[in-house]
Amino acid sequence: MVSHAAPSENDELVSFARELAYAARRQTLAPIARDYRIEDKGQGGQYDPVTEVDRTAEQAMRALISTRFPDHEIRGEEFPEKPGTGGYTWSLDPIDGTRSFICGLPTWTTLIALLKDDDPVLGVIDAPRLDETYIGAAGQATIIRGGEASPIRTSSCTRVSEARFSTTDPFLWGPPAASLERILNIVRVTRYGHDGYAYARLAGGTIDLVVESGLKPHDYNALIPVIRAAGGHIGDWRGGTNFSAGQIVAAATPELYHSAICLLADA
Amino acid sequence: MVSHAAPSENDELVSFARELAYAARRQTLAPIARDYRIEDKGQGGQYDPVTEVDRTAEQAMRALISTRFPDHEIRGEEFPEKPGTGGYTWSLDPIDGTRSFICGLPTWTTLIALLKDDDPVLGVIDAPRLDETYIGAAGQATIIRGGEASPIRTSSCTRVSEARFSTTDPFLWGPPAASLERILNIVRVTRYGHDGYAYARLAGGTIDLVVESGLKPHDYNALIPVIRAAGGHIGDWRGGTNFSAGQIVAAATPELYHSAICLLADA
Repeated sequence: MVSHAAPSENDELVSFARELAYAARRQTLAPIARDYRIEDKGQGGQYDPVTEVDRTAEQAMRALISTRFPDHEIRGEEFPEKPGTGGYTWSLDPIDGTRSFICGLPTWTTLIALLKDDDPVLGVIDAPRLDETYIGAAGQATIIRGGEASPIRTSSCTRVSEARFSTTDPFLWGPPAASLERILNIVRVTRYGHDGYAYARLAGGTIDLVVESGLKPHDYNALIPVIRAAGGHIGDWRGGTNFSAGQIVAAATPELYHSAICLLADA
Repeated sequence: MVSHAAPSENDELVSFARELAYAARRQTLAPIARDYRIEDKGQGGQYDPVTEVDRTAEQAMRALISTRFPDHEIRGEEFPEKPGTGGYTWSLDPIDGTRSFICGLPTWTTLIALLKDDDPVLGVIDAPRLDETYIGAAGQATIIRGGEASPIRTSSCTRVSEARFSTTDPFLWGPPAASLERILNIVRVTRYGHDGYAYARLAGGTIDLVVESGLKPHDYNALIPVIRAAGGHIGDWRGGTNFSAGQIVAAATPELYHSAICLLADA
């Protein structure tokens, strides 16, 4: 996973990350997940739904990590940080795409990342309703579907005008809406509202470009190793890798990434 | 299916409509569907993709209908109308949501309707990637998932402010964009880009309101019997059932429908 890691350590961590995803699935696909409580975290502002399923799924993953790797730090969306030692941190988003989840739409995912000294080195995007698990680590990107693993690779698209483009909510872009309009007017096809699953399909070669703003670390940590291992380019809106501003561009090729950020820079 | 039809005739037609859906699935899920040609029907205007899979899937359904019911009329998206006698017409959309299909996203559907004297009396919304078939006929709405049939019903939502809302493309609304903005500002959650599948989930009770414009008969014919049989209300933007203008509102309850068209009428 990290360049100097023994293959066996990498395999062990990848296999453990899959275990985490399947532990979360047992909660998110459980019968109770059809009749769950929804709360609004938005506190009078924008509606920000969270379900009891988010919490039970994150707890299931936290319990496994604490048992297996008690010294690893854990940062999840729904609970306070659990401190650790030794430089390894798990980043967890039990349900990315809660809006899709509560609308009975299938492209919500569970996002799991392992960071070494704050650098995401292993990522899992799991889509339980679709029985698809996307894994990126040690330069290898894989999809597991129906129990079978296959390598995946981004498309060879280099031009914005030929890109299949996705973004979660066109009305969440706020002030830089002009740059969104510029992209929408050029790309070949646009799809909205798929959250982390859009990046999974970018790694799988059927979406070419994703541009978003307002992402939090638990939203983007897992995406980075998957996109990179599949041959894509992921960075911020200015050509760097300052992800903490939450403005992300993921592209099938470096050329496409750079064309896209030129359009954003003009805004 | 029609009120005076013998149950056996209705059952036979429902069962045949499922056969059509599964014949289409054999094309849309076939290995060739992973490496298909895409053409642009847009003729220099807006990009309007069609794939060879659309054509082979429609042909498969047409062949079954012509053999079993040679006197039935057939209207499909991709081929010229086949005239018939006796008042029965099949309306076919082999892939509703071609944009999602070509982006490797799972919520595209096959839409099948049977019309009696131009009135849609049987509707099927089939989601092959999700193994879900939604059927509405003779006042009964059913989902078949993993081979098991269950009755479905719309939610009891009556207020726009509590609605889970869906529309395919916010930028396709054109001039009445002000009315879209009014709805977006009020509803609880918005999801874009699910085409016919949004109506399926409305029938299944997890989406409450869908508002769209620019729909063609092969887009809306199949939705009408499914929504009605599930207890929902589907009509045009003015409170009537003049669907041919392509402006559709589907709602979980009549009260929600009427609240939504008040917002549209103000535009």
